Amino acid sequence: MLIAEPLQKAIEELCKLPSIGRKTAQRLAIYLLKGDAKYFNDLINSLVELKENVKFCKQCYNLSVEDYCDICKSEKRDKTLICVVEDISDVIAIERTNEYNGLYHVLGGVLSPLDGMNVENLKVNELLDRLKTDGIQEVVLALNPDTEGEATSLYLAKLIKHLKIKVSRIARGIPVGGDLEFSDIATIGRAVLNRIEL
Amino acid sequence: MLIAEPLQKAIEELCKLPSIGRKTAQRLAIYLLKGDAKYFNDLINSLVELKENVKFCKQCYNLSVEDYCDICKSEKRDKTLICVVEDISDVIAIERTNEYNGLYHVLGGVLSPLDGMNVENLKVNELLDRLKTDGIQEVVLALNPDTEGEATSLYLAKLIKHLKIKVSRIARGIPVGGDLEFSDIATIGRAVLNRIEL
Repeated sequence: MLIAEPLQKAIEELCKLPSIGRKTAQRLAIYLLKGDAKYFNDLINSLVELKENVKFCKQCYNLSVEDYCDICKSEKRDKTLICVVEDISDVIAIERTNEYNGLYHVLGGVLSPLDGMNVENLKVNELLDRLKTDGIQEVVLALNPDTEGEATSLYLAKLIKHLKIKVSRIARGIPVGGDLEFSDIATIGRAVLNRIEL
Repeated sequence: MLIAEPLQKAIEELCKLPSIGRKTAQRLAIYLLKGDAKYFNDLINSLVELKENVKFCKQCYNLSVEDYCDICKSEKRDKTLICVVEDISDVIAIERTNEYNGLYHVLGGVLSPLDGMNVENLKVNELLDRLKTDGIQEVVLALNPDTEGEATSLYLAKLIKHLKIKVSRIARGIPVGGDLEFSDIATIGRAVLNRIEL
């Protein structure tokens, strides 16, 4: 097969990205090659700047350009409330709702001993240190509702309760716009169990 | 919403790529940010090299690092045969089959007056010039079997026959591994009409 070598190399590198298959990689490479030079430069510069300038907040491990992230530094946020999430993308998802006004703590994963994720790999001790010093009144656990997430939530809840701090967990139930008929049994069960008086 | 500004910028630029939505862009940006620095450099370098070093072959308009592409320069290819395709990705698709040993001619699109694609926007005159001088014996039309592709094929066939050169078209029929029952009527019709004696 006689494909120009730089194209083949670019396709191979693009293929390594998550959720990019061979055909998409090829389409992207050809698009970039044939496309506008200005867009190409903007894209490359934005990626290089992302890689060079963005680091992790020293307090909550969210992304940040400076030592502490905009959320930790903000005067408007409720500093007595910490929401514990698995990953940075969960911070973005919760921020997008505009329903939460406290701080965050990014764990960097959930407990999963089989995958080598133990307490030492997560920012659990860093969380406990924050709770001991920062005057926190409530911790909201917002981990994914799968087996590992639930196990991690229970583990953290136990540790946090020990510090006499209130622990809550985001609600499980039928998604907004969802259909009762097509929801799985576990979700419906939780929704009935956690019903709210109107 | 308080997302680190370079991340937001990178997500916006990635979103402009074809078939990349907002969520995929976010996943890619976070992957690159958290990932290996070596891979990041390899990816950026391969893209910059692609953009800087790859140009179009002066004869067939396929991608090439030099003035003429490897296919046009190859001694092993049948230089009496030209396969006309719409786009570079079609060259890659046909090369991958290992069933074709002639040269190519990349039109750069198909006739579609409503989208502003006329004869002048395509490499039609360049094709006719090649046919007049190069000792070509057969032109294989391999355009997509949609309305515009069919119209362009008919248009080209008329021009090429005028030069007393044989014109053929790649076969239409049931795809290999396909199912007669689930093929559309037009495809089955063509397959029956173009049946081959065994």
